Formats: sequence, structure tokens, C-alpha cells
Amino acid sequence: MHVDIGAALGEVAEPGVDEDELDALDERVATAHETIAAGRENGDFGYAALNLPEETDPSVIREAVEPVTDAEYVVTVGIGGSALGAKTVTAALADRPDRHVILDNVDPEHIERTLAALPLEDTAINVVSKSGTTAETLANFLVVRETYEDAGVDWTELTVVTTGESGPLAQLVEEHDLPRLPVPDGVPGRFAALSSVGLVPAAILDLDIEGLLSGAGAAADDLGPSLYDSPAYAYGAVCYALEERGAGVNAVMPYAERLELFAEWFAQLWAESLGKDGRGQTPARALGATDQHSQLQLYRAGPRDKMVTVVRPRERADVPVPETDHDSLSYLSGADLGQLLDAEYDATVASLAQAGRPAVEIELERLDAEGLGELLFAMEAATILVGELADIETFTQPAVEWGKRAARGLLSGEETEETKTVAERPSYRID
Amino acid sequence: MHVDIGAALGEVAEPGVDEDELDALDERVATAHETIAAGRENGDFGYAALNLPEETDPSVIREAVEPVTDAEYVVTVGIGGSALGAKTVTAALADRPDRHVILDNVDPEHIERTLAALPLEDTAINVVSKSGTTAETLANFLVVRETYEDAGVDWTELTVVTTGESGPLAQLVEEHDLPRLPVPDGVPGRFAALSSVGLVPAAILDLDIEGLLSGAGAAADDLGPSLYDSPAYAYGAVCYALEERGAGVNAVMPYAERLELFAEWFAQLWAESLGKDGRGQTPARALGATDQHSQLQLYRAGPRDKMVTVVRPRERADVPVPETDHDSLSYLSGADLGQLLDAEYDATVASLAQAGRPAVEIELERLDAEGLGELLFAMEAATILVGELADIETFTQPAVEWGKRAARGLLSGEETEETKTVAERPSYRID
Repeated sequence: MHVDIGAALGEVAEPGVDEDELDALDERVATAHETIAAGRENGDFGYAALNLPEETDPSVIREAVEPVTDAEYVVTVGIGGSALGAKTVTAALADRPDRHVILDNVDPEHIERTLAALPLEDTAINVVSKSGTTAETLANFLVVRETYEDAGVDWTELTVVTTGESGPLAQLVEEHDLPRLPVPDGVPGRFAALSSVGLVPAAILDLDIEGLLSGAGAAADDLGPSLYDSPAYAYGAVCYALEERGAGVNAVMPYAERLELFAEWFAQLWAESLGKDGRGQTPARALGATDQHSQLQLYRAGPRDKMVTVVRPRERADVPVPETDHDSLSYLSGADLGQLLDAEYDATVASLAQAGRPAVEIELERLDAEGLGELLFAMEAATILVGELADIETFTQPAVEWGKRAARGLLSGEETEETKTVAERPSYRID
Repeated sequence: MHVDIGAALGEVAEPGVDEDELDALDERVATAHETIAAGRENGDFGYAALNLPEETDPSVIREAVEPVTDAEYVVTVGIGGSALGAKTVTAALADRPDRHVILDNVDPEHIERTLAALPLEDTAINVVSKSGTTAETLANFLVVRETYEDAGVDWTELTVVTTGESGPLAQLVEEHDLPRLPVPDGVPGRFAALSSVGLVPAAILDLDIEGLLSGAGAAADDLGPSLYDSPAYAYGAVCYALEERGAGVNAVMPYAERLELFAEWFAQLWAESLGKDGRGQTPARALGATDQHSQLQLYRAGPRDKMVTVVRPRERADVPVPETDHDSLSYLSGADLGQLLDAEYDATVASLAQAGRPAVEIELERLDAEGLGELLFAMEAATILVGELADIETFTQPAVEWGKRAARGLLSGEETEETKTVAERPSYRID
């Protein structure tokens, strides 16, 4: 993985990072790296995520999913960190990403329609909930189970569960003798992509989870005390410095359709980890070249409150544009679609630099299991680094708990402080 | 459509809009409404978009697509405004949204894989380009055409073209005697969802485009000189006022899977229209309840630089959560998935208000053709209103042109000012 910060330097962009500022930051990176390395060593909460490349045993996952590897489809029942990582991996690596279906919302129409379209006898079920009590996940799983039963399909033959050692899901595993995979200790859901939490569907679809872990391991080996030697830290440090100088938005724009989900995964990782204490960049997801003709207007000419992160693989499939005799299209003749996409990428970076707007480039050699593993790990390490530099609690999410309690109270019908606040919430309607 | 601005008022949120500020703004809304009404009356560039509900003739579209209504799939070849509207409509209204496939990027792998998975003899082609020269669209169309030819499928029998009266696509229409639909006069692509630009795939899938247009017409009738009488203007005015007070980000979060694409459509409309002259909110897309457990951390506890727009239909399908005998799940017993989703929605709005963060609610009676038409039209009108209040050129996109010229130059191989800038763009690599 390569990171290019040229278009984020102070001599190019405003906000930008001056080189002497980077040098000063590099000393803080060294200290942060020590903290991170010690946290990994001790297996401390959160930092333990960076040990997953070596601690996740792919053969354990392969063994657990063995009974369902004949399934054509796999439906993941989970939410947030328990679904997005898995979705990101199959979207990037599967020949047919449609074989992995996600139920990570409680929209009744969507659930109904999705289940109705699947051949249930040929669809494995991957349930993921650390606590085994997540409302959305359990509600959906109860619906899924009943749908299988109503269709006369034995769901117990098709289900793999990833959950902790106690709770309703763990009980269910015992009752029905289901394969259970553990959730890794000390790893918040959003940092768990490189464990059974993120790898079960990929294993069912027989994707290269070993390569993914070894790519992640390579990125782990790249971490060191200086941002100048570590692409992940360089990325994190530059984001931090730009945020300090006013870049409150980080627009993440992969130039590869298979990485569209990666941008979504990154967005939740970044927002939930770093959106605290009145700070934290807002991740904005975009896709190149598609969004280039709309969002770029804002990125180049709007407020100087953002940075753009572009991501691409260096290798692309070979799809030549057929010849045409229309003069106005002659510039396309002899081109390849990949060349066109790369021309758009180069043009975007240059056009941001030309307008003095900061951009950071992330390049992978190729978009395969190793490349993706490297990217996911590097972004996790970058997130943790930013948390250290900003001195915030990267691994907690206190601000989402209020809403969870409120939703729970609303459903159970008991009156709590939260449900009262919901009932009395401000309203000013315009019809 | 109903808009609730209660949680965006100054007494609740910071940034927030005070009621006397709204009153003052209402006078400016009256003036802006006059400009907009006059622009519509004269069919002026851009404003003409608001006349589409009455000017688009659905029977012309139905007639043009008649030869291909037997197709099981339709593949749209277009980019930006020429694809997103169409995608938004079928995603919201089709029973099987997978019947509409979009090629709006030039990622070679994706194109190859997508075409390989389609039964071409049963797949209609919908090509959309106003100028008929858009590089991505034409390159993709040349690839699509050749793929059909290689498979021995007569693409001319399956193709519908939406383009202007001249250019390579118009020529092609003549050569092969294809059905051609016009692009509406004076309507930028991103405002063209309610014309043939956005409605052809919906018509091929036999969706209710008449209902869509009549819903949009109802929203048009709601426009008037006061924000207090017009949900669309109320929304636009509040966004404008919040932006003025520091809400540089507008996080749009529909609580309905079928509206996920709507958020994407809104993002390009908002960014490309309003991201100018150093201003413009950054649209951030999210999906409730899925993203509630991650993004909400940032929205509640991050910088006070954003507002949240939540959108939901009032009616939902009935999918009860099956009973369970696990104590810890008893609060789910007797609930319905829709109730759970609505509890999450209510909890999110209340939790933002409780943290003093501004939120605006948009509610549709139901998510059908009328409701969607109303929503799309209202958001277009809101965008135009913000442009008037901010005194910017809503309907142009000068900042994307540089990149287009650069990409074109890179492909043709001629050296231009832009290609030189690309070649000399700043670089500082960390490997």
C-alpha cells in the first residue's frame, strides 16, 4: 500500500500540512506508536484489534462453516460492525457479491422481500451478535427462523452463529447444537472485520480469507515509530493535522466499484471511533468516477472544510473500448475502460490540487485478498493513531447508548427518562 | 409530505434557528418564490425543472419503451444525473429492484462482471446522455453494444435512447431507427429525474410513473410565498439558516431501505447545485436504523458543524416479530419490525434534540409512487430555494469542467494546460 500526501501539503492546499509541522507531528506519532504497541502487547481493549491478523485462525472458521459450504447464498443477520466488515469483504472479493445478502436493518418490507427472493434450502444463515441480545439482530433472526420453518426448511442445518459465551444466541447454539464461532476478546465490533465476525460469509463463499489475513499482517509489520515509514500512520497523521486546520469532512472516494462498501465500512469506523468530545471528521462517502461529476463541484469550490481521500488499485482488468467512426468520440479509440477510469482519477487529484484543496492518495498494488487485508488493517491503525493524537477514547461509543435505551424503552412500553424525552420531543410541523 | 423543524429551533439546538429569524427569512422566501415562479413561467434554464410534473408526458415514454416492455432486465448506461434519478425511482418502487442494473462508472471489472451475469437477449438497454458525447457513457455503450454483438443478440431491438437532437447518439438513433426520447429543455441533468431521463427504466418495468408525476404535481401546488405553508421551502430555509450558523454538513438519513438511493440522489443534487463560491453544505449519506449505531456517535458528540435530516414513510408493511421464551428478548414480544424501526427513528430524533443537535424530520404518508414524486420534487424546490437565498448559480457546475477537460486530454494524448497540470501534480509518497 502506498500513501501520497503531496496534494495535502501546505505549499499546495489550504488547509494543508507544512513539512515542519509533519516533522513535529512525527515525534508525537512515535509516542502514540509506543502506546499502541504496548496496548497490543498486553491485549488491551481495542488495541487487541491490531493483533487479529495473527490471532484469527482461518482453519477454525473454515471448519465451522464446513457444513454449509454447499449453499449458494448466505444471509448475514447482524448490524453495524457485525455486518459491515463481512459485506465489505465479499463485495470486494466475490465473483458474485449477490451471493451474500445482508439483513442489517429492521425495515419490514425489505426483510420480507429479501427472504421471499431467496431459495431458503440453499441459503446459509450467518448470525452475528457479540452480546446475543442486539434488538435488530435478534428480531430479524426470529423472523428469519420462522420464515425457514414456514417453508419447511430446517434452519438448524444451515446456521452458523458468531457470539459470546452467554446470552440468548449462545443458548440457542447449545439447544440446537449449532456451529458457534467466538467473538474476539477486547475488540469492538467495528474493529472486528478480520475475525470470525467479518470472515464467515467469505469462508462460506470460499474466498481467500488466508490471503486477507496475510495482507493485514503485512500492514501490521509496516507499523513503526515514524509516519515517514508507515503508510497507515502517514494517512492518520495527515488526517489529524488537516482536521486541526479545519478539514471537518473527510470525503472518501474509491475508484473501484468493488470498494464502494469499503467506503461505508470506513465511514462507520471513523465516525464512531473519532466522533467524540466535540471533534471528529465527518466521513462522506463517494465513488469515483461516478460522483466526480457532482461532488467534485463542492469539493473544489465549496467551503475549505474538507479533505478528499482517493483510493485505487494499480492493476485493472483489460476491457478495451471498441473503435468507432464518430469523430467526436475519436479520443476514446484505442483506450481501455481502466485507462479512462485512471485518467479520471488523475484528473480529480490534479484538479483538487489546482484549486488548492487537500487530497490524499491511497494506492493498492491490486484489489485482491492481500490488498484488501492491507487496506482494512491500515485504516484501523490510522483510526487508532488519530484517537491517540486527539487524546480521545477511540474504542467506546457512549453517545449511541442513549438512543438504544430509548428504543428499548419504547418497545417494552415501560416509562423511563428516555421514553419521556422521546414523548416530549420538540415539534414544529409544516404540512 | 410533512416537515417538522421542531428539533432545529434555537431553543433546542446549537446551531439552531430562532423563530424571529425564521420570520425574517420568510420575507426573503417570498422574494425568492417570486423569482422561482417567474423563472418557471418563462421556462428559464433550471427553473424549468419545476415544470416537469406537468410537462412530462408519460404516454410518450410508455410508447417509446413499448418494444422492450417484455424484457426482464434493463441496463441503464448513463452517469450522474443521467443515472441516479432512474436508479432512485426503481429502487424505491420496483418489487425487484435488481431488474434495473446501472452502468454509471467505467470500472472495467465491474462492467465485465455485470454484463456477464445478465441474460442479454432479455435485457433492454437504456442509454442516456444529453450531449451524446459523455465519455463514460459512450465508452460503456460501445462496450455494451459489442458484448451484445459478440453474443449474437440484436441490440438495436432492445435499445431506447434519451438524448438531444444532435451528437453521436442522435446519429445512432437515425442509423438504426431506434426509439429516441428527448431530454427536456432547460433542465440540468441532476434536476431531470421527473423526465424521460429518469423515467424510462421505471416505464420498462411498468411502474407507476403517472403516480410519480402526479405526486410531484401535488408538491408543486404546495409551493407558495411563505415557508410556513410549504414543506419544501421550510426544509430549504431551515437548511440555509443552519448552514449560515455553522452546519456545514447535512446528514441525510432515510429510515427505509428503499430510500437508500434517494439519499444518494439528494447528495449529488445538493452538492453540485449548492457547492459554490466557498459555500454549500456537504451532504453525508446514512441509512436508519443501520447507521444509527455508528454515525450517531459523531452526530451527537462530534463538532457542532452539522444537521441531520431524517426521512420516513408513516405506513409500513406488517411483519410481526415471532414470540420467544428468552427473558432477555421479552421486550420484543408482540412487536412488529416496523414498530422497532419507528422506535429507532423516534429515539434518534429525541437523542439529537437531547444533545442539542439540530434535526429536521420529513415524513411521507407512504412510500408509493405519489409519495416518492412529492419527495423528489420537494427536494428539488428546496435546493433551488437555498440557491436563491445564498445568491449562487444553482444550475451550473463550473468546477467539474476542469477535470473533464483534463481526463479528455489525458486520453487523447494531446498536451494541454490541464494535462500538464496533471503531469506535474504534487507527490510525496510514503511506501
